[in-house]
Amino acid sequence: MKLSIIPRLHKKAGLPPGSLVFTGEKKMEQVSIHRFLYNPDTYEETNLEPSGLTAKYPANRICWLNITGLHDTETIENIGKAFGIHALILEDILHTDQRPKLEDIEDGLFIVLRMATYMPENSMIRWEQVSLILQGNLVLTFQEYPRDVFEPVRQRVREHRGQIRTSGADYLAYVLIDAVVDNYFMVLESIGERLESLEDRVILEPDPEISQLLYQLKRELIYIRRAVWPLREIIGTLERLELKFKTATKPFLRDLYDHTIQVIETIESYRDVLIGLRDTYLSTVSNRMNAIMQMLTIIATIFIPLTFIVGVYGMNFEWMPELKLRWGYPVVWIIMICIAGLMLYVFKRKRWL
Amino acid sequence: MKLSIIPRLHKKAGLPPGSLVFTGEKKMEQVSIHRFLYNPDTYEETNLEPSGLTAKYPANRICWLNITGLHDTETIENIGKAFGIHALILEDILHTDQRPKLEDIEDGLFIVLRMATYMPENSMIRWEQVSLILQGNLVLTFQEYPRDVFEPVRQRVREHRGQIRTSGADYLAYVLIDAVVDNYFMVLESIGERLESLEDRVILEPDPEISQLLYQLKRELIYIRRAVWPLREIIGTLERLELKFKTATKPFLRDLYDHTIQVIETIESYRDVLIGLRDTYLSTVSNRMNAIMQMLTIIATIFIPLTFIVGVYGMNFEWMPELKLRWGYPVVWIIMICIAGLMLYVFKRKRWL
Amino acid sequence: MKLSIIPRLHKKAGLPPGSLVFTGEKKMEQVSIHRFLYNPDTYEETNLEPSGLTAKYPANRICWLNITGLHDTETIENIGKAFGIHALILEDILHTDQRPKLEDIEDGLFIVLRMATYMPENSMIRWEQVSLILQGNLVLTFQEYPRDVFEPVRQRVREHRGQIRTSGADYLAYVLIDAVVDNYFMVLESIGERLESLEDRVILEPDPEISQLLYQLKRELIYIRRAVWPLREIIGTLERLELKFKTATKPFLRDLYDHTIQVIETIESYRDVLIGLRDTYLSTVSNRMNAIMQMLTIIATIFIPLTFIVGVYGMNFEWMPELKLRWGYPVVWIIMICIAGLMLYVFKRKRWL
Amino acid sequence: MKLSIIPRLHKKAGLPPGSLVFTGEKKMEQVSIHRFLYNPDTYEETNLEPSGLTAKYPANRICWLNITGLHDTETIENIGKAFGIHALILEDILHTDQRPKLEDIEDGLFIVLRMATYMPENSMIRWEQVSLILQGNLVLTFQEYPRDVFEPVRQRVREHRGQIRTSGADYLAYVLIDAVVDNYFMVLESIGERLESLEDRVILEPDPEISQLLYQLKRELIYIRRAVWPLREIIGTLERLELKFKTATKPFLRDLYDHTIQVIETIESYRDVLIGLRDTYLSTVSNRMNAIMQMLTIIATIFIPLTFIVGVYGMNFEWMPELKLRWGYPVVWIIMICIAGLMLYVFKRKRWL
Amino acid sequence: MKLSIIPRLHKKAGLPPGSLVFTGEKKMEQVSIHRFLYNPDTYEETNLEPSGLTAKYPANRICWLNITGLHDTETIENIGKAFGIHALILEDILHTDQRPKLEDIEDGLFIVLRMATYMPENSMIRWEQVSLILQGNLVLTFQEYPRDVFEPVRQRVREHRGQIRTSGADYLAYVLIDAVVDNYFMVLESIGERLESLEDRVILEPDPEISQLLYQLKRELIYIRRAVWPLREIIGTLERLELKFKTATKPFLRDLYDHTIQVIETIESYRDVLIGLRDTYLSTVSNRMNAIMQMLTIIATIFIPLTFIVGVYGMNFEWMPELKLRWGYPVVWIIMICIAGLMLYVFKRKRWL
Repeated sequence: MKLSIIPRLHKKAGLPPGSLVFTGEKKMEQVSIHRFLYNPDTYEETNLEPSGLTAKYPANRICWLNITGLHDTETIENIGKAFGIHALILEDILHTDQRPKLEDIEDGLFIVLRMATYMPENSMIRWEQVSLILQGNLVLTFQEYPRDVFEPVRQRVREHRGQIRTSGADYLAYVLIDAVVDNYFMVLESIGERLESLEDRVILEPDPEISQLLYQLKRELIYIRRAVWPLREIIGTLERLELKFKTATKPFLRDLYDHTIQVIETIESYRDVLIGLRDTYLSTVSNRMNAIMQMLTIIATIFIPLTFIVGVYGMNFEWMPELKLRWGYPVVWIIMICIAGLMLYVFKRKRWL
Repeated sequence: MKLSIIPRLHKKAGLPPGSLVFTGEKKMEQVSIHRFLYNPDTYEETNLEPSGLTAKYPANRICWLNITGLHDTETIENIGKAFGIHALILEDILHTDQRPKLEDIEDGLFIVLRMATYMPENSMIRWEQVSLILQGNLVLTFQEYPRDVFEPVRQRVREHRGQIRTSGADYLAYVLIDAVVDNYFMVLESIGERLESLEDRVILEPDPEISQLLYQLKRELIYIRRAVWPLREIIGTLERLELKFKTATKPFLRDLYDHTIQVIETIESYRDVLIGLRDTYLSTVSNRMNAIMQMLTIIATIFIPLTFIVGVYGMNFEWMPELKLRWGYPVVWIIMICIAGLMLYVFKRKRWL
Repeated sequence: MKLSIIPRLHKKAGLPPGSLVFTGEKKMEQVSIHRFLYNPDTYEETNLEPSGLTAKYPANRICWLNITGLHDTETIENIGKAFGIHALILEDILHTDQRPKLEDIEDGLFIVLRMATYMPENSMIRWEQVSLILQGNLVLTFQEYPRDVFEPVRQRVREHRGQIRTSGADYLAYVLIDAVVDNYFMVLESIGERLESLEDRVILEPDPEISQLLYQLKRELIYIRRAVWPLREIIGTLERLELKFKTATKPFLRDLYDHTIQVIETIESYRDVLIGLRDTYLSTVSNRMNAIMQMLTIIATIFIPLTFIVGVYGMNFEWMPELKLRWGYPVVWIIMICIAGLMLYVFKRKRWL
Repeated sequence: MKLSIIPRLHKKAGLPPGSLVFTGEKKMEQVSIHRFLYNPDTYEETNLEPSGLTAKYPANRICWLNITGLHDTETIENIGKAFGIHALILEDILHTDQRPKLEDIEDGLFIVLRMATYMPENSMIRWEQVSLILQGNLVLTFQEYPRDVFEPVRQRVREHRGQIRTSGADYLAYVLIDAVVDNYFMVLESIGERLESLEDRVILEPDPEISQLLYQLKRELIYIRRAVWPLREIIGTLERLELKFKTATKPFLRDLYDHTIQVIETIESYRDVLIGLRDTYLSTVSNRMNAIMQMLTIIATIFIPLTFIVGVYGMNFEWMPELKLRWGYPVVWIIMICIAGLMLYVFKRKRWL
Repeated sequence: MKLSIIPRLHKKAGLPPGSLVFTGEKKMEQVSIHRFLYNPDTYEETNLEPSGLTAKYPANRICWLNITGLHDTETIENIGKAFGIHALILEDILHTDQRPKLEDIEDGLFIVLRMATYMPENSMIRWEQVSLILQGNLVLTFQEYPRDVFEPVRQRVREHRGQIRTSGADYLAYVLIDAVVDNYFMVLESIGERLESLEDRVILEPDPEISQLLYQLKRELIYIRRAVWPLREIIGTLERLELKFKTATKPFLRDLYDHTIQVIETIESYRDVLIGLRDTYLSTVSNRMNAIMQMLTIIATIFIPLTFIVGVYGMNFEWMPELKLRWGYPVVWIIMICIAGLMLYVFKRKRWL
């Protein structure tokens, strides 16, 4: 599955804004809704039916609804109605080619992220859009693929590890964003390893395939860059939204911001390394070319004149006095050896040998 | 029809500012004026004669006048008089090489946009200037080509779809700008598809034509970039013009802004991909060149010395003892095979084979 | 007359600041001073002698003094004394390699511009420094060349066209700056036309001269860029100088600013197009090179082995049994045809043919 | 030990933030803790056991604790508890692929730096993370390697050199950061020397290895750049933290800031020089290639036609009247000399010789 | 004397800040101190002994002390003591690889500049560090080389030219900085002239040496850029230091700022021209290469097949019926001429000829 750089937003061209159209591909059979209710003392997990959704939850618990699969527009619309979500936001959730963004909506936050998952089974990177809505004690997350990247977070809630159970919904939101950013490191690591393995290949055995591999890496970096760059601004804004993110979460946001910067700087370094690798590849190839041309030139320039000389004495003129001479043949040999020697000397002096 | 990168503003050089001169090419026979009057309850469409224009409309209706064709300077001047439009603004409407811009005029807004239409019949992009004036309940739009890009909007008004009928003239203005921005996605998609089809060609069969196709794509991106870049600022300014754009329209403007950013980022990605493709194309071509040179070198360096040897024994010297020997001929063959073998061994060791 | 990129400011090194030295070349015989006095009702033109200069003018008229020719330091000094101009400003007027700039002097404005004139007679661009001083009702302009670029402005004053006669001296200053900026469009158009004519040549018949033409265009763009870039800031500052530029002139300044931005963006587009053209030129040339090399390789690799074979049977060994065979000759031909066919097949499969 | 550009942060993916995991490699056997207590009058040095740590120190002395070796998570955790350090900060200390940063914690400062040490024994650069905590009179430093880069600082304390004994803990912190920045100069000097030695080689004897050396230098600069770039901001922030850094230390911070800028500018210059060197290398190589090709062309184009001529008269046709002519042989020689002469003349005129 | 891009600051690594170590090379035998005392009415020049230095001067005179030669650390230290100069500033004066900077010290200003002197005797640029301290009526300048770049300034004081005698110490400081900036123009002019002479050479006779000359120019521009870039900020700051620079000097500072900008823009233009020149050089070289390859190909592809044909009829088979034919020889000639003609026709059609 090759990544496309073309945003597929045009499907909605002509429709009024706020129309719900899913612009991605259908990636799973059924929309699944997973609900988590917890407070410091208890927790409760349920898989809900889209029909069983309600916006009422006990006020003393944090509620996390994770919706996986976006192709079923109707379900999304129902969720939107149940929780009073603006039509434009629902539209953004369904347009899975969104640029990552943060919207400071009236009673909460709406965040769109692009999640990269490194798939070890085929060494590829899978991209999907993750949307997150934070409203009071409620966190809604929307994913495209069933593979559960938020599982470690859920595990932490279940096992009461870290401060997740004792903190508010804003901390949960932070932890989920953090999980997405952490994934970038894994993706960057896989790219970094491919870069470093290319480094050796470029110098030791530069084959034509390298050119394409470098292009693929470059393309993947372009893709990641587009996904990560807006994050910087998003997390910067989060830090400034004092009322919606309580002070306790602040140092964590700071930490998250540092990670984002590090992801961005790593991407930039990779780009620089990539440019350096390409240059080195090109000069290695060109050096090989030169070595080959030198070989050709040396062989050709030595033997072409000699072949001419032997051609001369292969002519059938009746009157060619040299042919009759007793020492004609050895003298021609001596002349030819001298010419070859002179050539080699010239090459040596010009440092071509 | 090839796009020109030359702005044709000089036609007016020497004239006082505010002189009305149409700098484009005449693109249709007759100026046509289409009027739309609507409120939540009713709507009314009319094709007006330039002479029948009047600035009086019922205050409780929104009026949208769409003027197609700009070559008739007189009509434009009449419209200007009827609605009290500043001479410099009329001048801008007629100078169809304008940079997109927003002017916050006394009693409204003046916006110039560059509209790109992808023409599926010849796979080309057609550019035209669209100007928009918003004055109270009145929206004036000026187009160069008859093809109706605003038809879907009109359809929405007629069918009372979305909130267009219930919202103000500012919403109409937003919807029209949105239609222009949505068109960029279609154009970018057509370019993206050409890019991706080039990707395969570059790697599988790099032919000389690719170089020109890459150049054409680059040129089109330069053109789009010039058209889209100023939009960012224009829409940013719109958001800040609180009084002229009512709060209800704000989230829509935000949405529009996000789309503009996405168009810009897509253009930047395309540029990066283009540079990557060009590099890859160049190294693929250079790799082929190397393979060809290697072939030449191997064949030539093996056979040139051998040809010299057979030349030697083709000489006609009377005294050439080797020629008389019984085993001379087979020995020469053996020597030649050894030389060829040695050459091949050297090539192998240098990894040229 | 080739443009030099070297600023010639060093002539004054060692002199105290404010010393009047003309750093340009003498471009005309005599300094000429042209005076224009006008108000909405009347106008009056005179050619003044340098000695006849006086700073007294009727307060109800706008006075425009146009000084052409700067080599006569003394005259400039007299003008400076007559109108109380600071020594550093006079110095700037005479240093004709100035960077464009705006100075907000006590009782007025001082503006330095670089004017580009496209000379159709030799298709070249002539550069000169134009300085402008605005003091109350007085406008002073200093030019290097006699050719009258401000003639259309004068014509407008005489014919009472536009609002020039009814507006203040600030409007006159604006109109003069506008005339300079308008000239850039003509210059850019001539460059754009050369660019577009090169485009065809690059693809159809890439000759070595193109490389130099591209370099010349690049050099001219560097020159224009240096002249135009500071204009952006200058006109931006003008807009902010509320007291010296009355409100009526504001929309015109806005218009002027837009033109400057468009000039700058056109220059940037040209640079991008130039880079694209160079890349395309280089790959077109390299593609031709490849085609030539391929031809050589195919011919050489087919015939070199065959020539070797015929060389073998041209040897004069006494014992060469093949020579005696009845079918020797035809068999050699068959072998050679097979080898050539094999070669062609290999080339075909490697897509070299 | 080749530097890796891959950040190894993912080890902690899935763990709650604040989990203590050491992400580096174990670089020494035992964690060592060195304590320095001093005031203007006395000083005292001790090597502490991790267990003997206590946060109580006489208030009138400055206490500097230097912890070397980070692999023992437990010790670090104990230190954290003893001095009340936030879990996220301990995490940062252990994640040795951190981006340099400054955190303004409640009662002090936390600074992460990347220290480069030039190792003269193998001409390599060793990188490690140095963390510094400033709390009142206490300075905590964490290093990865035992080699003592802070020894000169300790020496200054012992010998009461400079103002270190008489200044506060903030001055000590400054001196330690200064030591890290000073080390960059040594590293840059070693790189600069390699650059300058490459300069000569590029021009005098461009060998294929140069391409790799340039790539290595580029890679090292990328690494240093990532380490130094954030320092600019860090030290800029330090200057603004008025309360934590007393005024006496201000000019020193200013000095430190200047050094950082100088390091950054040196890196940028090196990058520029590197690009220039690569360009020069490529054209030197390409010039050599040209010289070789010219040689081949001259030899080949002169002798190929001559060889054809001698081949003609080597044919065995029965009826070849030239062969019977008395002057046939010399005439052929004359013709061949003329052709060779003509060729050489053509080459001369085309300046290929 | 080749310029080194390596900053030599490490000599002081390990020393406490404020230690006085001279990091440059000793450029003259003895430190010389020249004192200038002047007011509008009188002036007085003396060469002082380092020992005779005192900080006491009549308050009504401006005192300019020019110290040439920095290797004698002790003298510098004495001067520091006499005038109460901070240790860090003395350190900066002696570290002659400083980045240009301005420090707003308590009772004055400290400015470090890099002065470039064009040496006409060997067409090289000599760099040195010039430090300037302004304290009330006192100006201290520190130079490395004896050559007197400030002589024209001294001459102006002696001859009472310009306003130097009637203005304050701040004006003197300005004049000295102005002298340094003026020198850049001379240096840039020498570089510009070399650039323009290279321009012709690149197009008319591109020899391999050009590549190195371009590299040298690039390197010199990097050096100048590093020296000039910080000046922009320094002079910008000077303008804002209202109290230390009196209003009368303001327009002069503005003028100085404009010059600095012009120097910077000239450097940038040179860089652009340099890049353009390099590109042009590379394609000129590559065009020559192509012409050579074409020649080789045409000659080789025409004669290789012909040589094969003549080789065929040089074979010694007993049964070769063509050899016996009366018209065999002429027919072979006709065939060969046809083949050559066909080849030439193909080349013509492919525009290779």
